[in-house]
Amino acid sequence: MPAPDELGQLSVVLINTRNPLNIGAAARAMSNFGFTDLRLVNPYETSFREARSAVGASEVLAAAREYKTVAEAVADCALVVGTTSAARRQLEHPLRRLDEGAKIIRRRLSGGRAAILFGSEKRGLTNEDLSHCNWLLRIPTREAHCSMNLGQAVAVSLYELARVRSTVKNKLVQKTEPATSADLERISSLLSEALRLCGYQGSRSPSSVQEDLRRLVRRMDLSAADGKLWLGILRQMAWKLRRVQP
Amino acid sequence: MPAPDELGQLSVVLINTRNPLNIGAAARAMSNFGFTDLRLVNPYETSFREARSAVGASEVLAAAREYKTVAEAVADCALVVGTTSAARRQLEHPLRRLDEGAKIIRRRLSGGRAAILFGSEKRGLTNEDLSHCNWLLRIPTREAHCSMNLGQAVAVSLYELARVRSTVKNKLVQKTEPATSADLERISSLLSEALRLCGYQGSRSPSSVQEDLRRLVRRMDLSAADGKLWLGILRQMAWKLRRVQP
Repeated sequence: MPAPDELGQLSVVLINTRNPLNIGAAARAMSNFGFTDLRLVNPYETSFREARSAVGASEVLAAAREYKTVAEAVADCALVVGTTSAARRQLEHPLRRLDEGAKIIRRRLSGGRAAILFGSEKRGLTNEDLSHCNWLLRIPTREAHCSMNLGQAVAVSLYELARVRSTVKNKLVQKTEPATSADLERISSLLSEALRLCGYQGSRSPSSVQEDLRRLVRRMDLSAADGKLWLGILRQMAWKLRRVQP
Repeated sequence: MPAPDELGQLSVVLINTRNPLNIGAAARAMSNFGFTDLRLVNPYETSFREARSAVGASEVLAAAREYKTVAEAVADCALVVGTTSAARRQLEHPLRRLDEGAKIIRRRLSGGRAAILFGSEKRGLTNEDLSHCNWLLRIPTREAHCSMNLGQAVAVSLYELARVRSTVKNKLVQKTEPATSADLERISSLLSEALRLCGYQGSRSPSSVQEDLRRLVRRMDLSAADGKLWLGILRQMAWKLRRVQP
């Protein structure tokens, strides 16, 4: 995760939100991805109340502030970015795809406060809202179905904003210790013996079967732990099969 | 947007989903990002009915199919990936961050069907569910608040899967066809039977042993050809061991 203080410089602004579930969902996504500053412009009274009193309402929601106008809500922000499904109107603003736009926003956060605006469920951002924006952000959805659920749009946008930096910072690739060749060889041998005891080999030469099995075991690409597990399994099988031979 | 036919190769599997709004939200996000195949394992009856009859229920939802078990739902999938918030349990699976994992899934879609699993709102994926997975995917959320809303988790995952470019695909074309889940399930069952006949199980419950073995087999990452080979080997062993039982 990136530095939380930097993400704290981004304000998420919900405008005329009608559904309390969406306010709650936006706050939850903010908390998930490390954002803290939620601003509500003219929310439906009851929606805001309900969202705040919902079970598990987050600290983000508790600290959310209410504004009468967009102008007041973004007054302290040096960059204001609107979100849009874009298909529906003539745009007079530069439009950037989310992954491109997110990089620009992240760069700006180190120098000052920025806001990302989400419009109402029904109409999105109005022309008046858009007039406060420096440029617009679009989540790349299908043209045939571009309009997203508000809570999901917030989540996807914040995921991307948190991601663009963290990719560089923290490469979380889990490296597991691989099985040793010695263990792989033991596994191949035990498998070979068990199969011989089962009469699997048929008319082929033992060395050719052994080679095939060794290759098969190599292709399993075993971790050290799984190697031990397979050794245990095959030892048991071989032991049992040895006992039942005439 | 990427080729829709390729995205059609990904099945979104919701397990034990309780809230109809979440089923609807998952279907909507699928439609937004170009995915079509929704599978529901054991959804709450009324949830599924309500979601389907909701205003604006999508084609995705109309075409969704219901399954009794995870095994049936993923039977035709060569790659099965679980989603997790990861903080909550000891993981026995490789864990990949969403952006890393999405690339791998996209690469595999050109060669066969893949499934991405989402657990119930309350508990996520159970250990039994996880035992069907090749590996796990984690959306990089804050440790202090890692658990996401289901509909938002689906949206973020699908956004990333649609986003990652096929640049990777060009580099690394998968050379071998992977084994199907149905074959892997047969291998796990035979292995389980063979071990039972050997007395390997000890005091542990059969279902717990079966889950461990399923995981072990998943981690082998078998090709279709090697899957057949293992089936042959284990059938022979099980046959022999059955014969020698009293």
